[in-house]
Amino acid sequence: MELIEKLNWRYATKRMNGKKVPQDRLDNILEAIRLSASSIGLQPYKVIVISDEATKEKLKLVANNQPQITEASHVLVFAAYDKIKAEHIDDYIGRIATTRNIPAPSLEDFKAKMTPLVDQPAEHNFTWTSRQTYIALGTGLIAAAFEGVDATPMEGFSNEKVDELLELGGKGLKSVSIMTLGYRDEAADFLAPLKKVRKSREELFELV
Amino acid sequence: MELIEKLNWRYATKRMNGKKVPQDRLDNILEAIRLSASSIGLQPYKVIVISDEATKEKLKLVANNQPQITEASHVLVFAAYDKIKAEHIDDYIGRIATTRNIPAPSLEDFKAKMTPLVDQPAEHNFTWTSRQTYIALGTGLIAAAFEGVDATPMEGFSNEKVDELLELGGKGLKSVSIMTLGYRDEAADFLAPLKKVRKSREELFELV
Repeated sequence: MELIEKLNWRYATKRMNGKKVPQDRLDNILEAIRLSASSIGLQPYKVIVISDEATKEKLKLVANNQPQITEASHVLVFAAYDKIKAEHIDDYIGRIATTRNIPAPSLEDFKAKMTPLVDQPAEHNFTWTSRQTYIALGTGLIAAAFEGVDATPMEGFSNEKVDELLELGGKGLKSVSIMTLGYRDEAADFLAPLKKVRKSREELFELV
Repeated sequence: MELIEKLNWRYATKRMNGKKVPQDRLDNILEAIRLSASSIGLQPYKVIVISDEATKEKLKLVANNQPQITEASHVLVFAAYDKIKAEHIDDYIGRIATTRNIPAPSLEDFKAKMTPLVDQPAEHNFTWTSRQTYIALGTGLIAAAFEGVDATPMEGFSNEKVDELLELGGKGLKSVSIMTLGYRDEAADFLAPLKKVRKSREELFELV
């Protein structure tokens, strides 16, 4: 399966060479992220796509100075809604009605199933919304590999400072992870030639 | 990109037809899950692969009686470690040393970076380990699509009862999500003919 080959090719690139990712390849990666699986289809997050050099410089400062942020062509920040609001559900119902060309009132039962989310505490909501971003992150990593684009998933950064820099708080969003997109600098990246390390099938799976 | 075609093909299958997934296809899906990206490469989870019919019946009872659990060929339960222990890090260091054929003591610096995880509260650990399972879940969904196998990601189940049924607690694991693998029953599944609903690019992405 080609997917296995792509998964073996990719790795969390530590150094990039500054080369730009062509627009059509970026578009394909974003399209795959857009189509990612998401619980009940709600997609309770946004993805900030940064190509502005000054913003990348500032982002690097609040992300442990990791060089791939400025060496990358584009930097994606996955940010989850910190609270599910009635408008998120209304928007989604509207989207279903439009996409499937059905009247919104026929979706009342489905809407009623989602409404309890709005009443949950914010903490509970965010546990769930932030988990969903990881499906999109994983899909993005795979999409990048299919486009021959290197990517680095990152969690080691100051979430609060990233939220402040990108003005996420006012939009009800909180940063969860970062993904840089670019091309590996094989000479500078110690990790580039090293073998991927994974649990064996026996260690990872339990058959019942 | 073929990946986009596969993402469009897949959907959260609500009814399956009982047909078995051939071993070579299942092996490819499991291999993709095994190769999934994971923060620092730790893979702090296990995947329970259930083909036993009696266990599937019992699982269905604690998962809102969702029919696809018993109609599926295989059911995967993604379970995260509820606490990162020193032995998880030691095992990983051992795996790196073996895979890359280097002495374990040369990895002391890397090990020291991971050790603070052991001192974090269990709650903090589990937030992180459970998020990692979503990368594996997402990768598994994509792998299934590449194999022409339908899959349903599920969160709506009693985690405590699933943990009890699969005896996960004694292994330091907690169930996070379920993925059924099988083949769609197009006649019975209301969702099969419906268009996929996703946010537009403008709704999902913010360009900086």
